[in-house]
Amino acid sequence: MLAAMPAIAVDAMGGQHAPEAVVQGVADVSLHTGIECVLVGDSARIQSILDGVAYNPEHIDIVHAGEVIGIDEEPREAVRRKRDASLLAALRLVARGRCAALVTAGNAAAAVLAAREELTLLPGVRQVALASVYPRNVDHPGQDRLALLLDVGATVRCTPPELVQFGLMGAAYARVISKVEAPRVALLNMGHDPAQGGADLATAHRQLAEHADLHFVGNILGNELTSGRADVVLCEGVLGNIVLRLLESVGSMAVDLSVSTAQRNWRWRAGMAIMASGVDQLRALADYASYGGAPILGLAHLVIKAHRRSNALSIANAVKVAAKAVRDDAARAVAGAVVGAG
Amino acid sequence: MLAAMPAIAVDAMGGQHAPEAVVQGVADVSLHTGIECVLVGDSARIQSILDGVAYNPEHIDIVHAGEVIGIDEEPREAVRRKRDASLLAALRLVARGRCAALVTAGNAAAAVLAAREELTLLPGVRQVALASVYPRNVDHPGQDRLALLLDVGATVRCTPPELVQFGLMGAAYARVISKVEAPRVALLNMGHDPAQGGADLATAHRQLAEHADLHFVGNILGNELTSGRADVVLCEGVLGNIVLRLLESVGSMAVDLSVSTAQRNWRWRAGMAIMASGVDQLRALADYASYGGAPILGLAHLVIKAHRRSNALSIANAVKVAAKAVRDDAARAVAGAVVGAG
Repeated sequence: MLAAMPAIAVDAMGGQHAPEAVVQGVADVSLHTGIECVLVGDSARIQSILDGVAYNPEHIDIVHAGEVIGIDEEPREAVRRKRDASLLAALRLVARGRCAALVTAGNAAAAVLAAREELTLLPGVRQVALASVYPRNVDHPGQDRLALLLDVGATVRCTPPELVQFGLMGAAYARVISKVEAPRVALLNMGHDPAQGGADLATAHRQLAEHADLHFVGNILGNELTSGRADVVLCEGVLGNIVLRLLESVGSMAVDLSVSTAQRNWRWRAGMAIMASGVDQLRALADYASYGGAPILGLAHLVIKAHRRSNALSIANAVKVAAKAVRDDAARAVAGAVVGAG
Repeated sequence: MLAAMPAIAVDAMGGQHAPEAVVQGVADVSLHTGIECVLVGDSARIQSILDGVAYNPEHIDIVHAGEVIGIDEEPREAVRRKRDASLLAALRLVARGRCAALVTAGNAAAAVLAAREELTLLPGVRQVALASVYPRNVDHPGQDRLALLLDVGATVRCTPPELVQFGLMGAAYARVISKVEAPRVALLNMGHDPAQGGADLATAHRQLAEHADLHFVGNILGNELTSGRADVVLCEGVLGNIVLRLLESVGSMAVDLSVSTAQRNWRWRAGMAIMASGVDQLRALADYASYGGAPILGLAHLVIKAHRRSNALSIANAVKVAAKAVRDDAARAVAGAVVGAG
């Protein structure tokens, strides 16, 4: 087994297309990169899927876990009862240092709860944030085509200092992953006026603006989310979750236009082919399942959450994002951002 | 002057295309309906615009107001200082009974503040809600192609009883305007589990579910907003504002695809023409500026807020919505819904 870099633990049983898509994604990665993965889950099923595809056995290890937390299972009860779930077993590999990061496409709420239980919070951090990436327009050269949105559901309400922490951690992560020196941080709100949105958002605005380590660009409105105005967008979990799902569903409309082409008449097919470049902008919104996942921030270890609908390509991308984050020590950058602030 | 029905006061100076678009919209209405309008604003400018278009003078009155509240002006200060603003003058016509409703496409926050000042809150109502309509898919015959979303910015945070009031008022309004016997009311949240989204949303869910006068269908997620699942969607103002603007901007992408056709090559034009029916679903999202406006709910009088970007058609539609609401006594229905609940 090659071990130039610590391995990535992959929850083989997490996601709507698990374990098949997860195992295939990891198999692809094993052929085309030097990344070592540990697939955690039902070892017999994992091996049987591997036997049907091409893979490099030197890059893949399997660790058995006998239980699975379902994608729509009530998370608290599941994490409490299923101690041998693939998610928990994979997290323990990370906690013990056997692996450097976890990738899971499974139940997001369970991943947040289990990660808080099995891993250590960064010193000074009060709440973890679940981040997501989404495509937006790029308004200057070198800007990532993806923006980071957090929190999208790990929290319900956040205090202003918690939103500032999310900003520091999100910017540190974006700096490492997107190679942008000073990611532009914005606060999602109902107006540009710093006083808008109530006392908490106004206080968060002031604290973000005063923070020397942040490139804070002010409030961002709903209609600006798809612009290149910000690289890191901050909000409470309920709001982030609703915005993310809405972005995804509206993007899906554009995809529906194209995937159903086969069932439509020739006029439609001709139109679609000619229009292809035009709908790209919208289609990108729904394609983001393939963008490789985003971190749970606030923990001493890296956890990358891939989209629950991840296919093999999405899983491969998420594993590559995790490996990049490990190689460039995103965990240390994120920890340093918060410690520097505390 | 015909006066089969009380007149509609129209803020001639409100909106990005005011006063031209507003006056033209009212002129159109005067030719094709029996609705009487009172245009409030700079009387010389209003008359000069009217002189350039066709209109029926029997259906239009002008009331002069010497000041204008700008579309992006700080609302509190503007409402306090500009006592002769067209918005305030128009509201006073409603408060005094000269007009039965107000239509304005101007500064939304100023409209809410001024309406709270010049008009009376319904007994038992604690907060007014600014509603908006947006297009969504229809999943059964007779369902309105528009859903009502509230609050979209009059409030910041709402208590559970306030969200229940919004539900009662929104359903009463939708019942009158959409002619749906029992509008389906839903709570915007991050999951279907009634306990999700924090204590306030969980309590609101319980109170909505227990309310005998409401057809409550549970939580609605971000990705379900464009479905036909609910006719009235409830949320706090910051969230509603962000969702509304996001819906609008993503829809605008689809419109951009078509309005810029002239600048594109023939392939693009051909594709666009063939695709027309396919992009309708998305384009509808951005066209909603023309849907005629939505009410500020919680007041003893009718105030219809039209989109700030309203053109003449949008204004005409908003005036017709206001006239329909007056004719069918939406104000009484809304008041009765809350009193019945108190």
